[in-house]
Amino acid sequence: MSKWYISSGDKCEVVVSTRVRLARNLEEYPFPAKLNAEGKAQVNALVRDALLGGCEEDLSYIEMESLSRAQAISLAERHLISPEFASAPKGRALMLSEDESVSIMLCEEDHIRLQVMESGLALDSAYKRADNLDNAVAQKLQLAFDERIGFLTQCPTNLGTAMRASVMLHLPGLSKSGQITKIAATVSKLGLIIRGAYGEGSSPIGDLYQLSNQVTLGISEETALSNLKAIAQQLVAQELNVREQMLKSPAWEDKIFRALGTLQNARLLSCDEFMQLSSLVRLGIAQGLLKDVSLESLSELMADMQPATINARENQNLTAAERDELRAKAVREALS
Amino acid sequence: MSKWYISSGDKCEVVVSTRVRLARNLEEYPFPAKLNAEGKAQVNALVRDALLGGCEEDLSYIEMESLSRAQAISLAERHLISPEFASAPKGRALMLSEDESVSIMLCEEDHIRLQVMESGLALDSAYKRADNLDNAVAQKLQLAFDERIGFLTQCPTNLGTAMRASVMLHLPGLSKSGQITKIAATVSKLGLIIRGAYGEGSSPIGDLYQLSNQVTLGISEETALSNLKAIAQQLVAQELNVREQMLKSPAWEDKIFRALGTLQNARLLSCDEFMQLSSLVRLGIAQGLLKDVSLESLSELMADMQPATINARENQNLTAAERDELRAKAVREALS
Repeated sequence: MSKWYISSGDKCEVVVSTRVRLARNLEEYPFPAKLNAEGKAQVNALVRDALLGGCEEDLSYIEMESLSRAQAISLAERHLISPEFASAPKGRALMLSEDESVSIMLCEEDHIRLQVMESGLALDSAYKRADNLDNAVAQKLQLAFDERIGFLTQCPTNLGTAMRASVMLHLPGLSKSGQITKIAATVSKLGLIIRGAYGEGSSPIGDLYQLSNQVTLGISEETALSNLKAIAQQLVAQELNVREQMLKSPAWEDKIFRALGTLQNARLLSCDEFMQLSSLVRLGIAQGLLKDVSLESLSELMADMQPATINARENQNLTAAERDELRAKAVREALS
Repeated sequence: MSKWYISSGDKCEVVVSTRVRLARNLEEYPFPAKLNAEGKAQVNALVRDALLGGCEEDLSYIEMESLSRAQAISLAERHLISPEFASAPKGRALMLSEDESVSIMLCEEDHIRLQVMESGLALDSAYKRADNLDNAVAQKLQLAFDERIGFLTQCPTNLGTAMRASVMLHLPGLSKSGQITKIAATVSKLGLIIRGAYGEGSSPIGDLYQLSNQVTLGISEETALSNLKAIAQQLVAQELNVREQMLKSPAWEDKIFRALGTLQNARLLSCDEFMQLSSLVRLGIAQGLLKDVSLESLSELMADMQPATINARENQNLTAAERDELRAKAVREALS
């Protein structure tokens, strides 16, 4: 079955994907940090039974301890679970839909961390699916909720809606022109945050950014989502504007085609270089310069070419050099 | 008609081309430096009449003043005339065969500077053709010759045979491994000289070197040619040996394929970058890694992609940026 990212969504020339996450806890159990092995097993089983057959999503249930380390890290690389969840599997479980658009961490920081991912700008539909899952749980189990402060969560920064919605934006124009710093300052005043989706600090790899809501208390889900959507649409417009100016220079066209040539020919390719070059290729596709490569194939590669995902697929611990060779081969085959 | 370089010769995996040059002067005229316009015109006409119809080569006769500056520099870029000959056309003429394998400068430093170029290692056949041309002139005109010091030439370093034979070698292995410096010292002790064929000084562009004889006095043509051939063959063997070691590393295979990818995709390409990348591609073809590109197409590009040759073809003075764009287009079309 195809994964969720093998399709293009709304505003896909800039918006790679949308993600809505909800944190929930069962009223009758302490937070996972205070819960023993038996308690965790009970929570996992309760949620599993509430959801399997109780919702519209086609979910499977996975004990995290049944996965290899590489398989677990690979899930984190694909943003299906948190790195912390991958590194400490004991007592934890995961519910996952076959297309990987829904993933539910059980006994992470909260009892339930559910997320829905869709391609393109799709805040409304991703939220609707997350809300349906939430309702399916709430029909069978009593959730920890307070009239005044909303859903109760382990970390107080999530109180209220306990919802984090985000869009992954490809911003080569705003990034390479240096405008992203000013934008980051502006969006933070509007209760949002923008940061690199891959890599650390100020220069995210591949010009990919996550824009997400910061505030969960004293604001409805609808307001938070419509704020996020408005700002995302504004950033899309700004980005497209900068790109149009930028691509008037033949030097950018040159960079884009060279990047494709390198991806189609390299015999060794590190993950960082792959991400940097595929940013240029993504830009070229989005702006109509490159016709024979699709955004979907790039998104698929971006998910598949991360280090642990390659290890997991090959079912062995490869050296970085071995991975670079396999990555180059897979990228060549996908883009030629 | 195809040019001489559109064919592969002996040892073509290392030897790009062979060139034999002879300097000759007519006994009854002073050297060109001491000759007025009328005298030069007489010399040019005498040699022209001796050769047109008098030799086996299909030559045409061109007054240098009839060419544009770009056309003249283009001839120099393709090593058919000297840069000095191109820059001061007055009183000078050129005889050229249609495939450009024979070119004869009239009233350069000497009355007659004739050269024969062939692809690959072809010292014997190139010399034979040069010798035939020399004989054709000598049958009709009295050449300046002294029993003791041989052919008389304006510059004393050419006295004797007045022959310069050279082979253009592609030496990426010996060059990138740093062995070329030691080799240069060794061949100079053997009466030969090796230097960059393109570019200045110690790092020739594209790893192309000219190996030629230094000594013309007290040595027969046959001995000079057989010395040069022996050393060239030895360098070919050394180069192939280094390449075999070098290409065991996947990093080199990677570089070669990336170079091809860049040449097939770039939208802007300077002459220097083209030469550097095509050195890697030439290496890849010679070593059997690249199958869909031929040495001949690279040699043709190397002749056609020099700056003044592009200007001459487009019949206008282009900026460097305009040339880079045309060069990238032509290279893409030739290699795709």
